[in-house]
Amino acid sequence: MFYHIKELQYNAKPSQPDPVYAKKLQEILGGQYGEMSVMMQYLFQGWNCRAENKYKDMILDIATEEIAHVEMIATMIAQLLDGAPAHAQEQAAADPAIEAVLGGMNPQHAIVNGLGAQPNDSVGYPWTARYTVASGNLLADFRANLNAESQGRLQVCRLYEMTTDPGVRDMLSFLIARDTMHQNQWMAAIEELEQTQGAVVPSSFNPEYEKQEVSYSFYNFSKGTESQQGRWASGPTLDGKGSFEYIEDPKSMGQVPDLKPGPPYMHGTPPEDIRAGQNPPS
Amino acid sequence: MFYHIKELQYNAKPSQPDPVYAKKLQEILGGQYGEMSVMMQYLFQGWNCRAENKYKDMILDIATEEIAHVEMIATMIAQLLDGAPAHAQEQAAADPAIEAVLGGMNPQHAIVNGLGAQPNDSVGYPWTARYTVASGNLLADFRANLNAESQGRLQVCRLYEMTTDPGVRDMLSFLIARDTMHQNQWMAAIEELEQTQGAVVPSSFNPEYEKQEVSYSFYNFSKGTESQQGRWASGPTLDGKGSFEYIEDPKSMGQVPDLKPGPPYMHGTPPEDIRAGQNPPS
Amino acid sequence: MFYHIKELQYNAKPSQPDPVYAKKLQEILGGQYGEMSVMMQYLFQGWNCRAENKYKDMILDIATEEIAHVEMIATMIAQLLDGAPAHAQEQAAADPAIEAVLGGMNPQHAIVNGLGAQPNDSVGYPWTARYTVASGNLLADFRANLNAESQGRLQVCRLYEMTTDPGVRDMLSFLIARDTMHQNQWMAAIEELEQTQGAVVPSSFNPEYEKQEVSYSFYNFSKGTESQQGRWASGPTLDGKGSFEYIEDPKSMGQVPDLKPGPPYMHGTPPEDIRAGQNPPS
Amino acid sequence: MFYHIKELQYNAKPSQPDPVYAKKLQEILGGQYGEMSVMMQYLFQGWNCRAENKYKDMILDIATEEIAHVEMIATMIAQLLDGAPAHAQEQAAADPAIEAVLGGMNPQHAIVNGLGAQPNDSVGYPWTARYTVASGNLLADFRANLNAESQGRLQVCRLYEMTTDPGVRDMLSFLIARDTMHQNQWMAAIEELEQTQGAVVPSSFNPEYEKQEVSYSFYNFSKGTESQQGRWASGPTLDGKGSFEYIEDPKSMGQVPDLKPGPPYMHGTPPEDIRAGQNPPS
Amino acid sequence: MFYHIKELQYNAKPSQPDPVYAKKLQEILGGQYGEMSVMMQYLFQGWNCRAENKYKDMILDIATEEIAHVEMIATMIAQLLDGAPAHAQEQAAADPAIEAVLGGMNPQHAIVNGLGAQPNDSVGYPWTARYTVASGNLLADFRANLNAESQGRLQVCRLYEMTTDPGVRDMLSFLIARDTMHQNQWMAAIEELEQTQGAVVPSSFNPEYEKQEVSYSFYNFSKGTESQQGRWASGPTLDGKGSFEYIEDPKSMGQVPDLKPGPPYMHGTPPEDIRAGQNPPS
Amino acid sequence: MFYHIKELQYNAKPSQPDPVYAKKLQEILGGQYGEMSVMMQYLFQGWNCRAENKYKDMILDIATEEIAHVEMIATMIAQLLDGAPAHAQEQAAADPAIEAVLGGMNPQHAIVNGLGAQPNDSVGYPWTARYTVASGNLLADFRANLNAESQGRLQVCRLYEMTTDPGVRDMLSFLIARDTMHQNQWMAAIEELEQTQGAVVPSSFNPEYEKQEVSYSFYNFSKGTESQQGRWASGPTLDGKGSFEYIEDPKSMGQVPDLKPGPPYMHGTPPEDIRAGQNPPS
Repeated sequence: MFYHIKELQYNAKPSQPDPVYAKKLQEILGGQYGEMSVMMQYLFQGWNCRAENKYKDMILDIATEEIAHVEMIATMIAQLLDGAPAHAQEQAAADPAIEAVLGGMNPQHAIVNGLGAQPNDSVGYPWTARYTVASGNLLADFRANLNAESQGRLQVCRLYEMTTDPGVRDMLSFLIARDTMHQNQWMAAIEELEQTQGAVVPSSFNPEYEKQEVSYSFYNFSKGTESQQGRWASGPTLDGKGSFEYIEDPKSMGQVPDLKPGPPYMHGTPPEDIRAGQNPPS
Repeated sequence: MFYHIKELQYNAKPSQPDPVYAKKLQEILGGQYGEMSVMMQYLFQGWNCRAENKYKDMILDIATEEIAHVEMIATMIAQLLDGAPAHAQEQAAADPAIEAVLGGMNPQHAIVNGLGAQPNDSVGYPWTARYTVASGNLLADFRANLNAESQGRLQVCRLYEMTTDPGVRDMLSFLIARDTMHQNQWMAAIEELEQTQGAVVPSSFNPEYEKQEVSYSFYNFSKGTESQQGRWASGPTLDGKGSFEYIEDPKSMGQVPDLKPGPPYMHGTPPEDIRAGQNPPS
Repeated sequence: MFYHIKELQYNAKPSQPDPVYAKKLQEILGGQYGEMSVMMQYLFQGWNCRAENKYKDMILDIATEEIAHVEMIATMIAQLLDGAPAHAQEQAAADPAIEAVLGGMNPQHAIVNGLGAQPNDSVGYPWTARYTVASGNLLADFRANLNAESQGRLQVCRLYEMTTDPGVRDMLSFLIARDTMHQNQWMAAIEELEQTQGAVVPSSFNPEYEKQEVSYSFYNFSKGTESQQGRWASGPTLDGKGSFEYIEDPKSMGQVPDLKPGPPYMHGTPPEDIRAGQNPPS
Repeated sequence: MFYHIKELQYNAKPSQPDPVYAKKLQEILGGQYGEMSVMMQYLFQGWNCRAENKYKDMILDIATEEIAHVEMIATMIAQLLDGAPAHAQEQAAADPAIEAVLGGMNPQHAIVNGLGAQPNDSVGYPWTARYTVASGNLLADFRANLNAESQGRLQVCRLYEMTTDPGVRDMLSFLIARDTMHQNQWMAAIEELEQTQGAVVPSSFNPEYEKQEVSYSFYNFSKGTESQQGRWASGPTLDGKGSFEYIEDPKSMGQVPDLKPGPPYMHGTPPEDIRAGQNPPS
Repeated sequence: MFYHIKELQYNAKPSQPDPVYAKKLQEILGGQYGEMSVMMQYLFQGWNCRAENKYKDMILDIATEEIAHVEMIATMIAQLLDGAPAHAQEQAAADPAIEAVLGGMNPQHAIVNGLGAQPNDSVGYPWTARYTVASGNLLADFRANLNAESQGRLQVCRLYEMTTDPGVRDMLSFLIARDTMHQNQWMAAIEELEQTQGAVVPSSFNPEYEKQEVSYSFYNFSKGTESQQGRWASGPTLDGKGSFEYIEDPKSMGQVPDLKPGPPYMHGTPPEDIRAGQNPPS
Repeated sequence: MFYHIKELQYNAKPSQPDPVYAKKLQEILGGQYGEMSVMMQYLFQGWNCRAENKYKDMILDIATEEIAHVEMIATMIAQLLDGAPAHAQEQAAADPAIEAVLGGMNPQHAIVNGLGAQPNDSVGYPWTARYTVASGNLLADFRANLNAESQGRLQVCRLYEMTTDPGVRDMLSFLIARDTMHQNQWMAAIEELEQTQGAVVPSSFNPEYEKQEVSYSFYNFSKGTESQQGRWASGPTLDGKGSFEYIEDPKSMGQVPDLKPGPPYMHGTPPEDIRAGQNPPS
């Protein structure tokens, strides 16, 4: 169960309205790696958690913080939209600066949301639950989380560069710091799990049942061997169980596929020798 | 540019048709972490790569392999659909076994695809480009790739458990092994980049511009402190630059939000004192 | 069955082209609350109607009118796109005004639709059938319809404010008037149904089977009690069967969730005591 | 900002696993009118609220409760999936009852989520932000909310009928009661706003600018006049400002549309007289 | 503008309910090539038509017919759902036949639509406007239409094979015949346009501006030359302007791509020589 | 299985960056008829092919070429984005030209992709697998392919008109030529199949089972008979088996639909005579 308090986790106070920037800021609210994604992802990972309680508790702590991040950004966007020139009188003035603002705004911010934030990304595409990851395997999911916090911090840093508004930058500096923490947090949790389970997900699958002769081979599927220069092409593998092998010219190990003609009631392309006839339905 | 050879990378030969299993196998073809996702993700990462050529080459090598994986699974699905009982005569027989098969099949496999594979997941949801990640920051993206190979191998292992068909298991044992390699490959590439750049993405953002006092604090946003027991709550942080701090009762640092009323031409809820009037359009 | 006549229901004649406004106008054509939504919603409600014929007939009358509204707006958009400057020669002139037009246009209006309307909203997101509501319960659905006409009229009024073109305004003034009628129409139909069925949907569910002690309680899930000042916090409930009660500090009534570990063949995170082992597939 | 407590708002304890029912229950978690929809809808309405504080507080109180409802249902689904027979050994037994369970399950519950809930509906379609409504006009939005609670309660009642598990029915009886409250709550808030603003949304648009001669006319767009029998076809209108009028045979009031040929650089279908020629790009 | 009459275009009377078949029938209602797609596609092509009036009229005639097809199929589905066993009492009986029906049903038909049709396909995926084609070039669009009627008739024929219900087959036999007409209709319209414009779309693009040396070459991008055996590999081209040429071993004609490093404010992977440093935001 | 070579199929070298044009160019990369669509469509048609091997080989040859086209366009877009002014310092200069560029850019090109191509269309909508067609009937699918190449070439020609950059035009002139070939290729393959199978898809359905009296009738569903002037309204049908007939005033051939009330446990609108009562759940 959840409680709300009226104060924001951190200040969200722009120095002045900027409806074009409001559109861009939607990316970290409702985009693939926006705050809505980590909020929903952590909530579902926490609620589905079948491991020790310390994991469930930790995941739900960060999930609850992320709701507050969505709240901060939504509040910021609403204020950036204050006084947006969504009005014909002002258009009539034909001021090129206003024109540029109008061209760069998300029209739905005015028409649909009445100068409010929306749960969409910076091109207006709605947030979708297919962004979330909750597999029941914590090591796999913590890697998803580390990726999400990496993509997320990268996007916030880029948005920081795109504004000079000190109030906006202040809020972003807070989000950037929290993403530093959250990257560290997931790295710590990953390290802990890898030490007990091993590095390859899932650790519980019997290796005898995998085709081990190709488990550590790098296949060079292109002309040229520049890909041989990296850590991934030689030396011990990261799971500590083998050595990388570089296969310069990988060969097929499979059959030439040859599908059977479909049954007549499928009405696919008939084989050549019966094309003249008809298959009556029965 | 690309070339095709007619042989599959590895065998895809089921022992017998199984249209219900064909539906499930769609998950690793066109699902969020199916082979189409890694294929498209690696292709775009490779084509957009602005780093040294060894990375571009490596990424496109694995991308090219993934196209072959999509090919193998599609071929497998088409064969699992051979002789699917999509016909009223057979239904008429009212055999409960056939009925169960029909109820468990994806109806589009017959109606739309004529007993062929489709670029969708196991509930028929179409693959979407929002599954792909190509940020221009390789460390961020390699974490996305490690996650994708972790989720992918987990799903293939689960599918392995759901069949006893030796031909299907043979193909899956190959895919499982390749995912072992690909997890190792991305771990190796991540290690290489972290050693030169540092662990927090992006490494190039000036830390003075982040709010450093909250960069290493774990916030306990719930009653109870089970979340204090993990590696993430104390000790040095994983980026080697700080120490985790556990905040048992985090406080708000922000304002109570208070949005201004919108302009009259937005026709939002009017403030109480002017509700009787009308705003004429101008 | 349907017939078409070539005249529009009302005039759709812009005074001059305005490709930027054409983009905005897409919202009330193919947006969440555009005319396509009410058209499809009413058609499906009518076709699925299992109540008296007067309802089916009424719903299909308004559905048929909505097809004509889609037609009017599509026709308007095509004319607003007349002569759109989608051409390099004109770009080359580097006229900032033309540049602003181009930046504010939907590029698909030229590239994909050849200066025609598209079944999408103002950010180019396609109309989706998930916008429609047809539940088989008319009181529930008429509330959906009243909402749709309220959101719709609100958006048309906002678009009216965003143009000074008298031809566009003329068409919008007609749509606004029809939405006035349609809000009244659904309010009338709701009143009629509420009088015979009661106000809570569905009326046919036995109240003994609901947990009646919480049926009229307002839960204050935040610090502070500003939410106590409204009609919803005290006095008789609107269904005439109880009194609102304000619970200032609501308490949990449920368990602390504790999920069982998953079976080994799910390959979730293994419990700590068996992490060293392996689960062979069987 | 938000806090979490570990207890659920109300019990979510099934008497026994039922993976087929788990699939159905997803509808009220991640469907168009599931708890995720009202949770996100109320959060965004609250965060965007520009009206008096009592509204913002009230909306966020109910939003915060809805997060707890999502939590309860997710927890219930995970338990309904306990011991789901997602394993070949059990399939091999070829027990028709198990076969029926497997055919009726959502395959992603096992393959993707490892026996956990997912943020999708009962056919596996992901929750999308296009389900949310936050227009900046509270009367419009409260109508959306009343609709959402009506559709929601209807679906929960139907799901109640589809199970006999007393633990599941206990949780649903709680949700049904809360939906009774929430319908009453929005009806109360609507009544309050209608009394000060009037019934037609938006109330602030100048009626002189709408085409008032068609503001109260019912158009009979079909053969036969069964639609004349309802409250919507005669008598005073619900906004108290006019009288319904029934137009038995509505006539067109608009032009026959006649679009101009497109410019040559659009490469549309050329007019007949110039089809022989070519338009060189310039 | 449109009018409705209460009679269906053709009978839609099933002999008995069949909720499992109702799910399958959704494909030709709301699927990629269902009747909703051709209805919306033809409506938009007609409304956007800038060519002679005979085309606009013809397109809107067939569009108007398609609305009636959607109506017929929706009506059929609602009747196939009559008496669907969506009730626990009946489940309790544990009759395997009922179990199979329940497993094969679309759960939303009961929970969401109350035994009514929905605007979705046979796996419950919603109809989307991205299925429609209206390019402003009639020859291109008529090819889209011929394809749509071909895919559509194929799917209806497959569905005909999947039932023995004489009432359902009667309706399908009508739809199959209309699709025969509509394939002929679009072939006729295509022939007419090709004779005046030529076969390659768009005909108005100056051929001097295309790279004509590769306009008639078949590239064999695989090992082996089975693809040489078809009409497409030799002989005169179908546009009457060239001859097919078979290139057995096509060579690259382009550069090795080499992208520049991004600017520092993008925070992509930094070049190796500056990885130690930091880019302060400015 | 596939191999990659590092050279592009043809040059992709813009003369200078143009981030606004980069946004437009996305249409032919990730749009409905972009290169990703034909790439995936042909791959799946090839892999699912159950006809003679020459078809499978031919389809996979062109599929493999299309991967190279995606590669070329992605490479072009990344270069068009070089040096995009996504930085506040430059914004601060308030140069209207830069402002116009920023307003016309896709913000995700900077924020999400770090100046790289994305698998989306020109309004940022992600590529979706619902764009692909692979029905198992080659004649149907080749018509889909002919349409795809027609829409595709039309869009590339329009994009050619929208730029004067000689490097961009050079690449487009190559794509236009290849689309000329591919239209010819599919026309040739269609001609070959129509000659052996007949023109109506599917050819294998027994015509006795279709309602032949309506197989060649044009229905005029509108006032006025302009639609009578075309090839589709009289003369022999294109399948060579009948004559077109023009029905000026088509009549209904079906029933007035009349659905039964739903069962009580569906909680639809109750019939009038039982509205007072309650249906207890059982």
